[in-house]
Amino acid sequence: MQDKLTLMIPGPTPVPETVLQAMARHPIGHRSADFQKIVRRTTEQLQWLHQTKNDVLVITGSGTAAMEAGIINVLSRGDKVLCGDNGKFGERWVKVAKAYGLDVQVIKAEWGQPLDPEAFRAALEADSAKAIKAVILTHSETSTGVINDLESIARHVKAHGTALTIADCVTSLGACSVPMDAWGIDVIGSGSQKGYMMPPGLAFVAVSERAWAAYERSDLPKFYLDLGKYRKSAHADSNPFTPAINLYFALQAALEMMQAEGLEAIFARHARHRAAAQAGMHAIGLPLYAAAGHGSPAITAVAPQGIDAESLRKTVKERFDILLAGGQDHLKGHVFRIGHLGFVCDRDVLTAVAAIEATLQELGLHKGTPGAGVAACAAALAR
Amino acid sequence: MQDKLTLMIPGPTPVPETVLQAMARHPIGHRSADFQKIVRRTTEQLQWLHQTKNDVLVITGSGTAAMEAGIINVLSRGDKVLCGDNGKFGERWVKVAKAYGLDVQVIKAEWGQPLDPEAFRAALEADSAKAIKAVILTHSETSTGVINDLESIARHVKAHGTALTIADCVTSLGACSVPMDAWGIDVIGSGSQKGYMMPPGLAFVAVSERAWAAYERSDLPKFYLDLGKYRKSAHADSNPFTPAINLYFALQAALEMMQAEGLEAIFARHARHRAAAQAGMHAIGLPLYAAAGHGSPAITAVAPQGIDAESLRKTVKERFDILLAGGQDHLKGHVFRIGHLGFVCDRDVLTAVAAIEATLQELGLHKGTPGAGVAACAAALAR
Repeated sequence: MQDKLTLMIPGPTPVPETVLQAMARHPIGHRSADFQKIVRRTTEQLQWLHQTKNDVLVITGSGTAAMEAGIINVLSRGDKVLCGDNGKFGERWVKVAKAYGLDVQVIKAEWGQPLDPEAFRAALEADSAKAIKAVILTHSETSTGVINDLESIARHVKAHGTALTIADCVTSLGACSVPMDAWGIDVIGSGSQKGYMMPPGLAFVAVSERAWAAYERSDLPKFYLDLGKYRKSAHADSNPFTPAINLYFALQAALEMMQAEGLEAIFARHARHRAAAQAGMHAIGLPLYAAAGHGSPAITAVAPQGIDAESLRKTVKERFDILLAGGQDHLKGHVFRIGHLGFVCDRDVLTAVAAIEATLQELGLHKGTPGAGVAACAAALAR
Repeated sequence: MQDKLTLMIPGPTPVPETVLQAMARHPIGHRSADFQKIVRRTTEQLQWLHQTKNDVLVITGSGTAAMEAGIINVLSRGDKVLCGDNGKFGERWVKVAKAYGLDVQVIKAEWGQPLDPEAFRAALEADSAKAIKAVILTHSETSTGVINDLESIARHVKAHGTALTIADCVTSLGACSVPMDAWGIDVIGSGSQKGYMMPPGLAFVAVSERAWAAYERSDLPKFYLDLGKYRKSAHADSNPFTPAINLYFALQAALEMMQAEGLEAIFARHARHRAAAQAGMHAIGLPLYAAAGHGSPAITAVAPQGIDAESLRKTVKERFDILLAGGQDHLKGHVFRIGHLGFVCDRDVLTAVAAIEATLQELGLHKGTPGAGVAACAAALAR
């Protein structure tokens, strides 16, 4: 039905009316005092969201641009890096690192399983020559719905002494606590169309003092993604290149809403929605794809045995105007994913479970008691 | 006065309500059939605007990202390039080329003067070893209001036989004719907040077949700006990374408006506004900064002798809510610039000239007959 589509994919996520309306303001000059005020205010808000005193820089681009910037600004050609890979985004950072001639050692886990912090500890402890310059990993692996134990891995990196932690927090930031300073993370990349409750187009890179020291040594070529230029401009409440001004309006509106809700409330909401989505799927008899206890607060991946995930997804969209995400790469047809990231309320999760259940009924594929999924979901939401 | 500001800077340029409202739509999935339709339609429209059959790719980023992509995708480390430099943006492409280890030969002209096509011809003819791989230049130099003779320079590059022409058309595309195929330009970079009548955030790179052949040989590292990824996705009506979906909505709305107006009408409007702005300044006794006959159709730079350009500009903003651009770098205080690019009607140019004239009167700096500027501007608009 026209204009009725509800997004329950891991990005773009739903956007509040307040934020959409902010987008529709006429642009102002990006070198004006009025725009400087917006840059100053949003920078403070971004630091609040990252729980950090570090620089948080804004790039016009996607989350990949943020992660690439984070990698190429603190490393040099031939540098050894450890990359965690347990999904499509883990894979992507390996590709970025290799594209720039880094010496990549991959620590893998099966898709659906979390990265093993002990594997990182072992590799880092074995590196007595201190050859490893950085550990690159994804916190919430969007492709599989797995949350990795970033806190433990960052602690092992700290113990190494010289390596940096570069974390893709694209679908974890704003969904669960990512205390940059407390965990000692050096670089965090994220994107606007996720926990920020905004349309896509802005990317964020937070950079620690240790990472800035590495920046001074970095010899990888860059210009648009040269974070030194962004830092210099940010310290003057400005941007090195014309930014997506209207997305900045949206950013401020969204961050005001997030501050009004409060970090703890935001994280509790996402945890509740994860529990409710999982309970609903469990009651319907649809197995989760992520290993038990390692589900992301942003996204629940479901692997419906013996059911074509794509046709289920298609029916949910056509019959109930809810867009779920499909499986990526070899998971296509085997997995669907429920996004519960950003501007999502209890009703949205309840509705998604109800629509999935109704679709299974309609297709004659519901194996349990009709309504059991919604009942379990509601019970989890009430807890 | 709140919400009254009119932008007459060379970017961001004024945005039509239709385009602003398109921005405020709720995002849709960027992997959906509905979004593919938008990509397909806007790609055709972009080819129309570039007067080309070549690929025109869309990057979420600024004009600098587009130009950097254009440069690093068709060149390899150590390649020799000729860079035209007669202003701030010419300077910038030299910096980008050097950041990637290219061997840069600069062909300079004084700020305010156009690049000399003969200097390019001579350098290209002298290159019997065919060492020059590309010529990089800016068509409309936004910092000085000078339009360079891209057509002639591209012809000399063609005569060389192997070098590519990489053109910054950020403030010329949509202001005057840039027939990519007819002129044989290999790469054109542009940005949304200019002739496109949109907010900033999208960048465009058009790529010729010869440039794609060079892409295959290019060894400069890239990932987010790897145009091969964009080409592959564009051929499937998609994007390699999550694009700024709402800016795509705006792009389609703006290009529909441009097609309704027609290329010839758009170019005639910009030429008329250039003539009107120049006539107004001439009648007020304010010298133009660009050499006579080389003024850009997008922007008129004015060098008011004995008057502080910044205080004039400030007064125009405070008294009449019109934002003019200042001079950049060493031109600060010596030059102000009237943007007449994109969504600008005759009234806007008349108003800008009237406001400048009124400001001079108010400051006791008007040297001629009060009203002469507006009269001359009106006469030029009527021609």
